Amino acid sequence: MQWVKVLGVVVGAAALLAVGIILGHYAISKGADSTASSISASQDLDLEILETVMGQLDASRIRENLRELSREPHLSSTPRDEALVQLLLQRWQDEESGLDLAKTFKYEVLLSLPSEEQPNSVTVVGPTGDILFSCRQSEENLTGEQAGPDVVPPYAAYAPPGTPQGLLVYANQGSEDDFEELQTQGISLEGTIALTRYGGVGRGDKAVNAAKHGVAGVLVYTDPGDINDGQSLPNQTFPYSWGLPPSGVERGSYFQYFGDPLTPYLPANPSSFRLDPANATGFPPIPTQPIGFEDAKVLLCNLQGNSAPATWQGALGCEYRLGPGFRSDGDFPADSQVNVSVYNRLELRNASNVVGIIRGAVEPDRYVFYGNHRDSWVHGAVDPSSGTAVLLEVTRALGTLLKKGTWRPRRSVIFGSWGAEEFGLIGSTEFTEELFSKLQERTVAYINVDISVFANVSFRGQGTPPVQSVIFTAAKQISAPGHSNLSIYDNWIRYYNRSSPVYGVIPRMGTLAAGSDYAPFIHFLGISSMDLAYTYDRSKTSARIYPTYHTAFDTFGYVENFVDPGFSSHQAVARMVGNVLLRLSDSLFLPLNITDYSETLHSFLQAAQEDFGDLLQQNGISLEPLVTAVDKFQGAAADLDEQISELQKGTPDPLQVRMINDQLMLLERSFLNPQAFPEERYYSHVLWAPLTSSITTFPGLAIAYSTAMNTDPGSAAWAEVQRQLSIVVAAVEAAAATLRPVADL
Amino acid sequence: MQWVKVLGVVVGAAALLAVGIILGHYAISKGADSTASSISASQDLDLEILETVMGQLDASRIRENLRELSREPHLSSTPRDEALVQLLLQRWQDEESGLDLAKTFKYEVLLSLPSEEQPNSVTVVGPTGDILFSCRQSEENLTGEQAGPDVVPPYAAYAPPGTPQGLLVYANQGSEDDFEELQTQGISLEGTIALTRYGGVGRGDKAVNAAKHGVAGVLVYTDPGDINDGQSLPNQTFPYSWGLPPSGVERGSYFQYFGDPLTPYLPANPSSFRLDPANATGFPPIPTQPIGFEDAKVLLCNLQGNSAPATWQGALGCEYRLGPGFRSDGDFPADSQVNVSVYNRLELRNASNVVGIIRGAVEPDRYVFYGNHRDSWVHGAVDPSSGTAVLLEVTRALGTLLKKGTWRPRRSVIFGSWGAEEFGLIGSTEFTEELFSKLQERTVAYINVDISVFANVSFRGQGTPPVQSVIFTAAKQISAPGHSNLSIYDNWIRYYNRSSPVYGVIPRMGTLAAGSDYAPFIHFLGISSMDLAYTYDRSKTSARIYPTYHTAFDTFGYVENFVDPGFSSHQAVARMVGNVLLRLSDSLFLPLNITDYSETLHSFLQAAQEDFGDLLQQNGISLEPLVTAVDKFQGAAADLDEQISELQKGTPDPLQVRMINDQLMLLERSFLNPQAFPEERYYSHVLWAPLTSSITTFPGLAIAYSTAMNTDPGSAAWAEVQRQLSIVVAAVEAAAATLRPVADL
Repeated sequence: MQWVKVLGVVVGAAALLAVGIILGHYAISKGADSTASSISASQDLDLEILETVMGQLDASRIRENLRELSREPHLSSTPRDEALVQLLLQRWQDEESGLDLAKTFKYEVLLSLPSEEQPNSVTVVGPTGDILFSCRQSEENLTGEQAGPDVVPPYAAYAPPGTPQGLLVYANQGSEDDFEELQTQGISLEGTIALTRYGGVGRGDKAVNAAKHGVAGVLVYTDPGDINDGQSLPNQTFPYSWGLPPSGVERGSYFQYFGDPLTPYLPANPSSFRLDPANATGFPPIPTQPIGFEDAKVLLCNLQGNSAPATWQGALGCEYRLGPGFRSDGDFPADSQVNVSVYNRLELRNASNVVGIIRGAVEPDRYVFYGNHRDSWVHGAVDPSSGTAVLLEVTRALGTLLKKGTWRPRRSVIFGSWGAEEFGLIGSTEFTEELFSKLQERTVAYINVDISVFANVSFRGQGTPPVQSVIFTAAKQISAPGHSNLSIYDNWIRYYNRSSPVYGVIPRMGTLAAGSDYAPFIHFLGISSMDLAYTYDRSKTSARIYPTYHTAFDTFGYVENFVDPGFSSHQAVARMVGNVLLRLSDSLFLPLNITDYSETLHSFLQAAQEDFGDLLQQNGISLEPLVTAVDKFQGAAADLDEQISELQKGTPDPLQVRMINDQLMLLERSFLNPQAFPEERYYSHVLWAPLTSSITTFPGLAIAYSTAMNTDPGSAAWAEVQRQLSIVVAAVEAAAATLRPVADL
Repeated sequence: MQWVKVLGVVVGAAALLAVGIILGHYAISKGADSTASSISASQDLDLEILETVMGQLDASRIRENLRELSREPHLSSTPRDEALVQLLLQRWQDEESGLDLAKTFKYEVLLSLPSEEQPNSVTVVGPTGDILFSCRQSEENLTGEQAGPDVVPPYAAYAPPGTPQGLLVYANQGSEDDFEELQTQGISLEGTIALTRYGGVGRGDKAVNAAKHGVAGVLVYTDPGDINDGQSLPNQTFPYSWGLPPSGVERGSYFQYFGDPLTPYLPANPSSFRLDPANATGFPPIPTQPIGFEDAKVLLCNLQGNSAPATWQGALGCEYRLGPGFRSDGDFPADSQVNVSVYNRLELRNASNVVGIIRGAVEPDRYVFYGNHRDSWVHGAVDPSSGTAVLLEVTRALGTLLKKGTWRPRRSVIFGSWGAEEFGLIGSTEFTEELFSKLQERTVAYINVDISVFANVSFRGQGTPPVQSVIFTAAKQISAPGHSNLSIYDNWIRYYNRSSPVYGVIPRMGTLAAGSDYAPFIHFLGISSMDLAYTYDRSKTSARIYPTYHTAFDTFGYVENFVDPGFSSHQAVARMVGNVLLRLSDSLFLPLNITDYSETLHSFLQAAQEDFGDLLQQNGISLEPLVTAVDKFQGAAADLDEQISELQKGTPDPLQVRMINDQLMLLERSFLNPQAFPEERYYSHVLWAPLTSSITTFPGLAIAYSTAMNTDPGSAAWAEVQRQLSIVVAAVEAAAATLRPVADL
């Protein structure tokens, strides 16, 4: 029948149509139809991209970067520093290897500079007033690079002008204990000039402690025992070896705080309120001047008086005595004095940060921040241009992939070239003051590379616990320079390791104090931070820091010959940075390990129990609430970790991932308490505030305890101990609360 | 040909299949196939649910809630307050109408209570030492509810014990100006007792100002002119009308700060560090006691001396004189003195918050917070149980939908029943100290309803600019009680309106000072906040506040008869709360209007320019940076608004929505600066810190200006003006920065 045939055709056609519809709906993902972002929203780190970037980072390019960057001195705010600002802008705006956007952030900040008309001087003045000896006013021109108008003479930045003169004493490292020792030995310090050596306490503290004891002026030198493993002859030091030459002088900032001195907590814009410099605090109270050890030898080895304690002796080749004044059988008449004439000036100068960004494809409002300072004391080949050279190579490699359209990060990557760091982390601090909320709300982590290579022996990582894991992962993936069969991790663990109750033997990470631009990020903003570098073999050298640090001998030649010939350690650091950065910017789940904080908290707690427990108990202060808090933290962290593991088994919803990532990112914030340390500036992180302490535990508690130890029960000092304990308990409890399931009370 | 036919059939079949596939892929959304969360992730507010909730909120249930809540006095930490904690827990844990979870947060806080053994007293003592007159030691038992052991006698909480005695003076409202007026009039204040009236300055300030001038004790009363529109007879006041009866006394906290007095910035856990009460600051310095106006009349109308200034006169029915001391032709011998004997005690007591949560379905880590305090002075029918009654009805309506499975909010909704508010916002403040990070990072907005109905005439909204819009939207949707043809909005605008340069005539929103539990949320945490209530017709009454405020006459009978018979205003407030809450919890894009902040900033700027501009300029301080900052803010806000409008046209990706919502939520945070007001506690919001000022502009700037006005150029006071200006500029710039596209520098 015709109609049966027609019906059959129609039914068959309908069936085909239906099959097609079903196939089209279910079998084909909406790939092409979906927005690009919903695909990439679930995408994880592309390990091939990671490999590509690792392979792209080139040692010789880093070397050439360094050659250019260190060619001329580039002290903050000088024309050459400004020229480097332009260099960075050019590189970051390059069409083929630049970023999405780069711009400068300019501030007007208070720097301290020596007077050009009146150079600082340190002289020995005889009883009749004639000058018997003058210390050098500049370092010796050993390589042709130490002279010239752009080489700022050695000076102590922010030391006040003045011309004190008095008998010389030797005050070891200029700590409070050192000056008390001199007093105990019956030495009258009033009106003296104190010769101190770098190390032990901060630069500014030496002047503060000295002034408290009536000292009128301070000299600071670097002892060969602290820097050269005792070697001091010209042919034993640069340019013949790694060591500090006898005329070498470490410059530095002697300001007690960081950030622009006149605009605490405000960005140093031209129109900003400024403190009256006369009222601003934190400057050293008395004239101070650094000198080289060949000059220090002349002064120190001529002192009379008691022999200095054993730990005060150094490697100048004589017995160190305390003074006061010179021995009559030396180079100077007895009663000869030392005159320290300082003519430093405070000046408002322009300091610039250069900031560049690669916008994130999926979560552009999450920032991975990588910073390095740009300004130096002189040529700054190691400090900081070894880091700037790495920064430029990392941005080149990433920018190239970006411009080719090969890659865009999930999260935004922001690069910061900081100005005026040498004067007190000024550029970075002003930036965090200006953009406090925005940065604190959105920054996943801050990576700092100031000096990239101190020495070429082992990796060195400093940071807060959440970043240990991603650093280890990267380190395992990259081969150690000079060891084709060893990873950076395996090499690192041989030089710096610790025994972790959780992991067994692992590389030892350092902690973050206030030595570089991570300080405002971790202490003020509470952002998980790290500092990456290559460093020394501590069994081979006891150098306090690389010997030409902050001298006019920190040159390209120094790096090329003695620090990292071949630049493979520079390359290794670049690879570490690139690897860590990409893992932070592209991983679906942020590689921030919050359970690693449990280990730190337990360790701090244990130290507190062991070292403080007895006396605390005698004073009616119990650590139980802290034990409880740490336990709660551990439980919450472990539970969250498990939740993440479960989610990672499937295809988690991007919003779910986002919520978890927010918990991971923001954990560090919960340890902030701006009320914790009212006498400090910016320090708000109750676990890492770098208040002096010899015990690795909660810093506020440790400091309060050390003050209270020698007081009666019920004293105000013991009340402060209780207060600091409560602050820590509250912070750890609050941190635990943020890790708990987000809709729990 | 057979093969042609076969080919035709095959081609036709293939074509049908293809058409089906194309249809299936493109024409049908992946609805059923997608995970539940990705459907709801894009879902917007369901207006039907909104309507349902509006319809569910029942006036008679609110009335029955109030009857139960106010049945007995429930002073903070008393057994009845604890019983109400249990009541709330029961309601919030109810199987059919409760929340997901409810629990208590307990603190140990310092309260102040009168001595049970030694009641406070205020007496007139004759020259020979005999008591000539005693003020009442309790309010008159007019309704049978004013007597009994649970009715705490009138007292000034935190006023110190003491028994000062001296000549009486009248000091108006006890402001600094008032005491200076007395001194100008040649009255010696040393050792006097000052009678003041409520109003003008805060309670604690009256004692502080008095003590500064040598006064030995303070009395505070409520003048009939300030509360009853002059009426004072028993038959003109409660229980016959709305008015304050002659024996009525306003209790209250006289503490200068808020939060637990002994644990600033720390949650008041049992083990927390506590200040020594002897060292804790903020308590009134001299004994203080409140009294009723019938007693005040006896004292005040017997004073001798000059007639008080016109603005100091009130409605006690006599000419107010200043003293010192009584006139000889009155009720007391001249030289009679007033003795104020206060035996208040400070005690550590348990204060509880009850907190409940409905977990969000899509973004459980985003919180809409709705709070009300639970503790009262006596029965607290208006304050705060009118609010608690509304809270319970809102949670019942929402909980019922939740338990039925009809609805779950997109974001989490958290309900807070605060303890110890009357003593200084203690429960809410301790909670914000305990969970600072978690709340600050996740809370979208805080809704406060303390007193829900002051009077039944008009809606009253207070809040920060971003919440104005959602409050208006809700108000337009709900009919005004007693006006079936008017919306709450249309009724509101008749009583409280302003002329907005952006919108024309709109209802006038009030601002948030420190009168209720929103204070720690807005000032300390920087969370956009609001307070909702129904209130008076200001053209009909000049009552400072509802007349039985903080007295034993604030009873259920008072509300039922005189405040809101029928409870339709209570219902209206419940509907407003429910409506605003649901819009905040369920709308895809947060209904926080950030461009409305531009209007406020412009208005503040304009006021500053007009009132301060000239003298600022003379002192070399330019407002230009502030003009620039406000412009930047306006531009960034407008651009973001436009971006949102564009996104709302399509189906925005949930991650995109999330990123925008984060910007909206976090805007309020960027106005915080903990360094702005170092002498205050918690106040960090540079736009809303309630420092005294008569000009509606940036508070820090206004206060600094008023101090500097009378000083020489270059003074420290003018430096502080510059500092406050820089603080505001930095905050507005920072706020603008957070509104800019997230991946811009």
